[in-house]
This record gives sequence, structure tokens and C-alpha cells, in this order.
Amino acid sequence: MNLRHFLTTQDWSRAELDALLAQAAAFKRARIGRQLEGKAIALLFFNSSMRTRTSFELGAHQLGGKAIVLAPGKDAWPIEFGDGTVMDGEAEEHIAEVARVLSRYVDLIGVRAFPKFRDWAVDREDAVIRAFARYATVPVINMETITHPCQELAHVMALSEHFGTTDLRGKKYVLTWTYHPKPLNTAVANSALLIATRYGMDVTLLCPTPEYVLDQRYMEASRRNAAENGGSLRVCHDIEEAYRGAHVVYAKSWGALPYFGRWEQEKPIRDAYRHFIVDEAKMALTDHAVFSHCLPLRRNVKATDAVMDSPACIAIDEAENRLHVQKAVMAALAEQGAGG
Amino acid sequence: MNLRHFLTTQDWSRAELDALLAQAAAFKRARIGRQLEGKAIALLFFNSSMRTRTSFELGAHQLGGKAIVLAPGKDAWPIEFGDGTVMDGEAEEHIAEVARVLSRYVDLIGVRAFPKFRDWAVDREDAVIRAFARYATVPVINMETITHPCQELAHVMALSEHFGTTDLRGKKYVLTWTYHPKPLNTAVANSALLIATRYGMDVTLLCPTPEYVLDQRYMEASRRNAAENGGSLRVCHDIEEAYRGAHVVYAKSWGALPYFGRWEQEKPIRDAYRHFIVDEAKMALTDHAVFSHCLPLRRNVKATDAVMDSPACIAIDEAENRLHVQKAVMAALAEQGAGG
Amino acid sequence: MNLRHFLTTQDWSRAELDALLAQAAAFKRARIGRQLEGKAIALLFFNSSMRTRTSFELGAHQLGGKAIVLAPGKDAWPIEFGDGTVMDGEAEEHIAEVARVLSRYVDLIGVRAFPKFRDWAVDREDAVIRAFARYATVPVINMETITHPCQELAHVMALSEHFGTTDLRGKKYVLTWTYHPKPLNTAVANSALLIATRYGMDVTLLCPTPEYVLDQRYMEASRRNAAENGGSLRVCHDIEEAYRGAHVVYAKSWGALPYFGRWEQEKPIRDAYRHFIVDEAKMALTDHAVFSHCLPLRRNVKATDAVMDSPACIAIDEAENRLHVQKAVMAALAEQGAGG
Repeated sequence: MNLRHFLTTQDWSRAELDALLAQAAAFKRARIGRQLEGKAIALLFFNSSMRTRTSFELGAHQLGGKAIVLAPGKDAWPIEFGDGTVMDGEAEEHIAEVARVLSRYVDLIGVRAFPKFRDWAVDREDAVIRAFARYATVPVINMETITHPCQELAHVMALSEHFGTTDLRGKKYVLTWTYHPKPLNTAVANSALLIATRYGMDVTLLCPTPEYVLDQRYMEASRRNAAENGGSLRVCHDIEEAYRGAHVVYAKSWGALPYFGRWEQEKPIRDAYRHFIVDEAKMALTDHAVFSHCLPLRRNVKATDAVMDSPACIAIDEAENRLHVQKAVMAALAEQGAGG
Repeated sequence: MNLRHFLTTQDWSRAELDALLAQAAAFKRARIGRQLEGKAIALLFFNSSMRTRTSFELGAHQLGGKAIVLAPGKDAWPIEFGDGTVMDGEAEEHIAEVARVLSRYVDLIGVRAFPKFRDWAVDREDAVIRAFARYATVPVINMETITHPCQELAHVMALSEHFGTTDLRGKKYVLTWTYHPKPLNTAVANSALLIATRYGMDVTLLCPTPEYVLDQRYMEASRRNAAENGGSLRVCHDIEEAYRGAHVVYAKSWGALPYFGRWEQEKPIRDAYRHFIVDEAKMALTDHAVFSHCLPLRRNVKATDAVMDSPACIAIDEAENRLHVQKAVMAALAEQGAGG
Repeated sequence: MNLRHFLTTQDWSRAELDALLAQAAAFKRARIGRQLEGKAIALLFFNSSMRTRTSFELGAHQLGGKAIVLAPGKDAWPIEFGDGTVMDGEAEEHIAEVARVLSRYVDLIGVRAFPKFRDWAVDREDAVIRAFARYATVPVINMETITHPCQELAHVMALSEHFGTTDLRGKKYVLTWTYHPKPLNTAVANSALLIATRYGMDVTLLCPTPEYVLDQRYMEASRRNAAENGGSLRVCHDIEEAYRGAHVVYAKSWGALPYFGRWEQEKPIRDAYRHFIVDEAKMALTDHAVFSHCLPLRRNVKATDAVMDSPACIAIDEAENRLHVQKAVMAALAEQGAGG
């Protein structure tokens, strides 16, 4: 059996993604199921979580399964991910053993592992989740690493609910960088481009300067997605031009890749772009756009109270949808295991 | 629907409290139920817990529900509670989003949030749980903030079991301050006065000096409770006078409000009153009084080994009752939701 | 009723241990059961865990029970274990209350409490779990203190599976010390000697110098075990002599007891014995020996990649067996409670 993971939406066909979204909509109507009866999922959090933990732990339970929450390095042993390492440093055990042992206990493994923010050339290899996928003998789910595919599904589900259709082609979609006092992960930004182009929208990446453009891997994959699905992708540094006529505004802050690991040098640059905050004036430029964000969101830094509390904001719906889409993902992966 | 929370027993009528206690007694006889079937509760711990966490998590499970335990600032994101704040500090998200998102996932929210111990004028506003109650669209339960209503129910249940009646009028009840090396929360002390006067007992607040009298909000509410329920409330600084003839001795340490946030100034004052420890000599002054404490308790600091290990000590019964009363509270609030 | 705990395998007869292993094998064939229906276990972790937590929490769930995971001193209050102490230090409550209250909530208590590594004369008293067993009114399970009896069962189960028989008499068994950058707990080493001699194997304790020999309590108990079960126990400091002809190689690192609490003095001694690593050359001296380790294991420090990834390594099987044997232990102890 060729084991199927959920590491990125790019590995799943549009038909498969649509099926996951249809299953998620069914779970939204009726939460309780039996798809994980007698099964278990280990949820490994190398980083903090509120929504992801709650929605995965609860989602597994609602399908009759059991989630085990582990925080390696805090309540579990620190882990080594390199091959052939002489392990005389901090790590007490190797991913080979962790993944193999967990695979004996549980049926699914979820992994959250943010970048280390020291060297993008290292972080972009996504070594932690790739090592889990390599050594585990059960399906692995990406709970956010350098992309965030579960958020992608929740996002497109919220947009589909808003527009009343899963056909999002022709929608003008803006992913806007926003200020944040710290350099953040590019995962949700990468994911927003991937999924918006996948669903054929006309996508604008709005960011202050070319330095804030995302990794070429995701830019190119998004361009291919756009070409294959009837949409487009452009980069824009002009706020007014980007917002004008938009149907969707999605906000996210991230650190500029050229300054990765040298954040003190990026800080004054970033500080000069606080005006990228999503506010009513900018939203007024759009074609009655819907606004969303993956959360957590710093109010009056990334978006104003007025935007967050307006009817146009569907961030809470998107967050709720995390529960439903993740149950769909777990159910699909577990079924695969059952048939294997 | 006007959403009902469990923030303080003062919001609940005596008939309602008695109904909760009757349900708790039923749960004590038969632990397993279906009242939370298909439902979930988020338990947010801003502070440590052993009894509260175990009893809520287990209690939800015994009623067919699922508890999700979160520790904001540790394994979840730190939260902002102020309105209109420009969130460029530590907090990564606002209570508005936290409460709204959790309300989409779960049916009940429990919150433990102790005072910050810097400024009582701030802490007495109980901003954290009030913000949850304002923004959540599901019932919120106080798991101890500046009062501890679940402890109140467990306490009065243990007293009712001990005296063989829920009619506690005429009982002489002493709440005694005790020494502790650190200034502690007044929550359980406030709650003891509220519930003891609510059940019509003749209540003595024993503390070293007038500086240790509790916040006027709780003193006045307790006086009104006493007047309405046939009991009384007095403050006493004389140990022998307070203990003599008592039927109930309840102990708690707390920091003196006038020194709130300036604890180094209170420390020598507090240190002079180590003799407020509950010991056999003091208990001998009572009318065969029952002794209890909310736990955790520092032995031989707040009460002696001899008192803790005597048959008069019902602290373990009171702790057990936390499980039963909290199940009654969760069931009552969840039913409300079901009918709404 | 005389309450039965699972603190050490020495308290359980061979027939009882064999019955636990038979039940574990049954659970390995069919994971879901009802033996803990309506019951709960509190799992107290004073130290980190991955396998133990996952396997206990999941195991309880698979048998219809509920595990509550607590980390005293982190998310629960720090605990005092001494009797008669004036508790004006760090501890907020006494084991007497913790154990009694938990006994009211749950049906079983699991405790992980490693040595403090300051004074072996203190640590060897195993005060934490002994205090739990003294004050709890429900069975207590050792999740690793200064011995690790659950690991013992998993280990002998894996050996039985490998050799196709529960009769391990005549097998040449080597427990080899290995290097590790820090001085580790002797628990698994003590346990390996106890269980290997209990099952009548011919046991060699291989360690660099007499200073690394284990506590006389375990050496003597193991010698008695050997005498009673037809096996033997010898100490050996020669690597080649120890490995030659072996059927089982079990590896573990531990700190030398004479240097307990003065680890900087032991460090250069330990550093001189890095060559005790289990590698292919040493394994080639054996009679096609099986290799195992309790995990976590530092690769290329305790054992080489080649050994860990070889078919002779059954460490993953042993780790899996933790789930099965612990379910057998919980079921046996819970049944006892039900019959009491």
C-alpha cells in the first residue's frame, strides 16, 4: 500500500479536495460520526495552539476516536531529525523511533512544527514533518509547518459558504501582508496563494516591497495552479490598486525571507509599513469584499476593530470550519488505512 | 434567549442552588449520566489546578461529554482582554475572537483566572471571566477568579452531609484567616462568606486586624444574604471569642487588600500572625465543630496534622463534592442550551 | 481488603506475571475491551514522557476508561511528601490530601517520579510512589521511579514473542551499560536484572568498572531470583567476554552510584567509556542475539544506526508492548477494586 499523507493540498486533486469539503459540510450539519471508532490520533505540538488543538482533539472525539496530545521538548522528550547524527546534544531520541513507536499506538499522526526562524534554507526543507512522513507507517497530517493545508480547506469552505458556490473562478482575491511586531511564519501566506489559485481566483499578493514576496517554490506552484484552473497571480506593492474591486481580502503578516534570521535588520523596514493594517477606508475600495484571517489576530495592528466586528468579517466562520475540514481529512486518511 | 452563566452563586436563587445540590447528591450516588452526550466543554486554565481540572475533565466525561483543557500563555496563545487596544504587546489575540471561536467548537466554557496581585482596583473587576461571558455565545463557568462558586457548592454540600440536613440555619460558622508564606487570593474567603450567609448561618469572619477584612462588595452582599436568610455576619479579631461554641470552622489564607501589590510591606504584618493556625487547642473551644478547607493546604502552617487527620476534618469530602456539584452545574447549563 | 498495587514485579508471583503477559497478548490481538468501563486513572508525571503517557492514556481509553494526565509542579500544585513537615517552603499541599482526593475521583493512580539525582541514600527510598501507595485508597501503578516494572513486562513479552516461548531459561542475557552525556536513572537497569533473573535467564551485567554496579538491593534480589528460577547473575567488565554467545543484548546508560550528586567527578570517568556503544562488531560476537532498549535512545551514542535498523532490534516491539502490558495491569488492578 502506498501510504497517503495530508502534507499539502498540492498532493490532492481538485476532485479530492472538493470531496473533503463536501464531507466537511456534512459534518457541519451533523457533528457526530463513527469514522474513527476504535482509532486514535497523536497530535504533536512543537509550537503553541488553541484552535488547532481544540478542533483536532474534539473532532477526533466526535468521530468516535481518541486524540493524544503531546508537546515534545516540554512534556515529551526532545527529538533528533537528522540522519546519521551522533546524538550527544539535547535530543534524547530520534524521529525514527518516535514515528515508528507512535505508529504502533495510533492510526494517524498530526504534526505542528513551525520554522526555527534562523535559516530559511534549512526551514524550507520542512524537515520535521517530512521525517515523520518518512518513518511513520500511518498517515501524517500537517497541522502547520511552512504551509497550513487545514487552514486552506477551512478558508475555501468559508468563502464557498459566503458566495453560495464552490465555483470561485473570477473572484478577485487579495492576500495582503500586514504589520506585526515580530517576524511571523509564511505558512498561511504560502497556503493562501496555493489554495486561492487552485480554486481559479484572480489573486493579488499585496506586500510592501519585493523583499516580502514569498518563496519561489510557492510563487511558482501558485502560478501553475492559476494556469491550470483559469485564474491568475500578480504581485502588487500599491495598496489602493490591490484593494480596488476586490471580492476577498485575506490578511497575514510574515517576515521577509531575505532577512530571515537577521530580524533586527528587517525590523525598521517592517516598522515603516504599519499602514498596511486592514481598515474601513481600504475595505471601502473593494467590491463589498469579504474579509478573513486565520487567527490569532492582533486587533488594531493587523486589522481594526471596525473591520473585525463588521458583517464582512468571516474569520470566525473560517475558524469554525477548521473543525469540520479536519474531521473530513482524518476520516479520509483513516478509511485509507482500513482498506489497506 | 438570555444566556445563563455560572459566574457567582449570587445570580442563582436559593431554590436553584438547592436543585443543583440535589442533582449533585444524585450524581454522588450514580456517577454515570448522559446529560452532556455529544457536548463539549473548554477548560481554560490561566493558573494551576489539580482538583478543578481533574473533577471538571472527569465530570464531563462521566456525563458523556468531552473536556478540552487549554492553558493560554503556555500551550495556547496569550490573550488581550481590553477593548480598543492596539495589540502591539505580548497578547497574540483578543478575547473577542477566543470566546467566539470556542463558542463554535464547544457547548460550555470554564475559566480559571486568578488576580494578578498588582492592583486590587483592577483585579476586583474580574475582567477575564467577564470578557468571556460578554463575548461567548455559550454558558461560562467560573472555575475560580476572585470568587469560587463551585467550591461554595461543594462546601455547603459537605456541611449538609455532615449535619444531615440542608437547613444550616442557626449553625455558628467561623471563617478564619490563617498564615501562609505568600499573599493568596481572597476568592475562597469571599465565597465562604457569600455561601455561609446565603444558607442562613451565623457567620464570624476571624482575621488578625481590620486590614484583613474582605472587599466591601462581598461584605455587603454577605450582610444582605444574612438579613434575607435569617443569619448574621460579624467580624472578630479575637481567636478565642471566634472559636468558642462554633459548629463549623473553615480556614483560608489571603493577602490584606490595603497592601495589595505592595506585599513586601504586608509580609512582616502577616508573619506576626502565624498563631492563627488551626490546631487542636482552638478546635477544643468549639461545640464539636467540623473543620474544612478548600485545598491545597500547607500542613502545620494553615492547620496542624492533628486537625487534618481528625474525624472532624471534612476537607476530603468537600474536595470529592467538587466533582458532583460541577457535574450538576454543567448539566444545568447544558440543558438550558438545549432548550434555547 | 488488602489493596494491591503494581509498584514492583517482585510483589507479584511468576504465575501472576505470566497471567498479565497472557492478558497482554490477548489485548495485542484485540485492542478494544470493557475492563475499565466507567472507571478512571490519574496519571501523575513528575517527569517527561512520550511512550508512557501515550500508552497509558490510550490504553485506558481502549478499555472504556478515562485517563486524567497531571503534571504536579507544572500544571498542578507542587507536593510535599515528608511527614510532619511545617510546609512553609515551595510545596502547596501534602501527599496525604493529594492521594486521598484523587482516590475519591479515580479508580487507579499512575505515578512517574524519577530520582532527584542529589543523594542516592534519599532517592533509593522511592519516597514519592511509596507515599502515594500509603495514602491512596485505590491501586497505584509505578510508571517509572527507581524501577520500571511496566517496562519489564513489555521487555519479557517482546523476548517471548521473539523466541516463540515464555520459557526463557538457558538464554544468555547481557545488560550492557552504555555511554550517555548525562548521568541517567538506574531504574531500567535495576528492572532488567530483576525480570531477566525472574525468568531464569543467565544474566551478565556488563559495565565499565565496579563503580557502575547497581544498588545492592537489586543485585541481591536478582541473585535470589536467579537461584529460585534456575538462572544466574554475574558482573563482567570485559566487553568481548560479555557479548560472546549472548542470545539477548539489552542496553541502558546510568550514572555510577558512588558519584551520585557529584556528577562532575564522574563525567571524565564516563567519558572514557564511549566505546561501550552497541555496534555491529560487538553484536557479531553473540549467538545471533536479539537487541533491545527501553527508549528513548540516542543513536550513535548508545547504539549505532546499523544496530537500531537491523532485524535483530526489537525495541519498537518492546515499546508497542507497553500498551498491551499496561492495559493488562490496569485491568487486573481494577478488577481487584470491583471485587473488594
